[in-house]
Amino acid sequence: MATLKKKLTVRLHDTDAAGILFFANQFVFIHDTYEELLRQLGFSIAATLRDGSYIVPIVHAESQYLKPLTVGDEITVTVQVAKIGKTSFVLEYELLGVDDTLVGKAKTVHVAVSKQTQNKIALPEKLRRALKAFQSAP
Amino acid sequence: MATLKKKLTVRLHDTDAAGILFFANQFVFIHDTYEELLRQLGFSIAATLRDGSYIVPIVHAESQYLKPLTVGDEITVTVQVAKIGKTSFVLEYELLGVDDTLVGKAKTVHVAVSKQTQNKIALPEKLRRALKAFQSAP
Amino acid sequence: MATLKKKLTVRLHDTDAAGILFFANQFVFIHDTYEELLRQLGFSIAATLRDGSYIVPIVHAESQYLKPLTVGDEITVTVQVAKIGKTSFVLEYELLGVDDTLVGKAKTVHVAVSKQTQNKIALPEKLRRALKAFQSAP
Amino acid sequence: MATLKKKLTVRLHDTDAAGILFFANQFVFIHDTYEELLRQLGFSIAATLRDGSYIVPIVHAESQYLKPLTVGDEITVTVQVAKIGKTSFVLEYELLGVDDTLVGKAKTVHVAVSKQTQNKIALPEKLRRALKAFQSAP
Repeated sequence: MATLKKKLTVRLHDTDAAGILFFANQFVFIHDTYEELLRQLGFSIAATLRDGSYIVPIVHAESQYLKPLTVGDEITVTVQVAKIGKTSFVLEYELLGVDDTLVGKAKTVHVAVSKQTQNKIALPEKLRRALKAFQSAP
Repeated sequence: MATLKKKLTVRLHDTDAAGILFFANQFVFIHDTYEELLRQLGFSIAATLRDGSYIVPIVHAESQYLKPLTVGDEITVTVQVAKIGKTSFVLEYELLGVDDTLVGKAKTVHVAVSKQTQNKIALPEKLRRALKAFQSAP
Repeated sequence: MATLKKKLTVRLHDTDAAGILFFANQFVFIHDTYEELLRQLGFSIAATLRDGSYIVPIVHAESQYLKPLTVGDEITVTVQVAKIGKTSFVLEYELLGVDDTLVGKAKTVHVAVSKQTQNKIALPEKLRRALKAFQSAP
Repeated sequence: MATLKKKLTVRLHDTDAAGILFFANQFVFIHDTYEELLRQLGFSIAATLRDGSYIVPIVHAESQYLKPLTVGDEITVTVQVAKIGKTSFVLEYELLGVDDTLVGKAKTVHVAVSKQTQNKIALPEKLRRALKAFQSAP
């Protein structure tokens, strides 16, 4: 199963007065990685939002936090396509710290929705194929 | 089971170019409500961070998104104490839109950790009692 | 000159590992107050973004920071319409802490831009009149 | 005058429902670049916050916005040390888009403050020397 990796540095803005990463910002990190995946699959988020007939909003998101992160920490976020359904897909993420220690995990579930009707639709074929190709790449 | 309710208005800053609430910001909304709960229970986050011997970081967080929210939407976030364990507690949240329609749900798991050793500790008695009292209030 | 006041509590999410408000979040606070002003003047941001022919983006913003703020601090943000020009308007803000101590100041300059051409346009008459009425209210 | 350059991609999270960069996030971008500068000068923000005797909070910040940015836009942020005073220093930033078009400008003023007394102090010598060396590098 193919894995995309994105390197990030925890910024002061990502932390809070407890001195560590504010938990919601782990979700920002994984979305950055999802956006990088879309770009690598040939999708422009800006063009899709402007001209596309559908969006793929997140309907479920979850994170585990295994070790505290702080400002300046260099991490790697990985993403894999865990499942491709009829109208949805599931992404799984890992956050790795120094020496590739697992510091966090996450999952997002995305559903294809028609911009016009706001109803659930079958995953557009171009997106399904791109996710499938990434998923089964060596 | 007692419920605390907090009213919020979705701000432009909470939305993204898809025109709706950016999913990670639902986690910010529920944490605002958790902070309000702590204040009502008599805890000062600033004082705890400065003088306390422990913190209660989130080790698991999850959200469901049922309806899209956009700028100006007035919502109510509710929080309940779902479970109080030996070293941890679980909070459950609901997000209600116009006419109290359920627009989202969320859950956070918090673990008590010693500031000095970074190890898990039993929930400090004062916090346990306050959570228990809130949980069982009519 | 009329003044709108908005009460805010500094949230953990607004602070950083230095233990104080992250400076960029003062700009978020003043924009919250600007959005409240628009609502009081009868403008819906969501409707304007969806159906309007213009937007009024910020072309200049500045803040002064006089005293550090931390999580739980209750502040009041005030906004006044400082100037109404042919194509632009200027808002001035003050942030007041405990006992109305001045803890920060800010200013934003907004320019009316056609959604279609992206060019500067004269301030739409409805907006100009609303700003003028607020400015000269007792 | 030496210039540090940092490449950034505008993320969905940085935009708002108007479809463009939320203005306060330009301040986040320039602070990222400032943090990169500190690292290149040999300073660890985490270590300074934990062990240092001083902090250098921002007392004034301003931004100009020349062209709208949207999700996926690749920009370069530059920073220069514009001025080194007795107790403060000034940084100036430029944001460059495609073909190095100037899309934004910014400035921050930082003041050295004793952690213990909260009073203004002379710029610590190690920091002054590092800023000076960077400023006068070819």
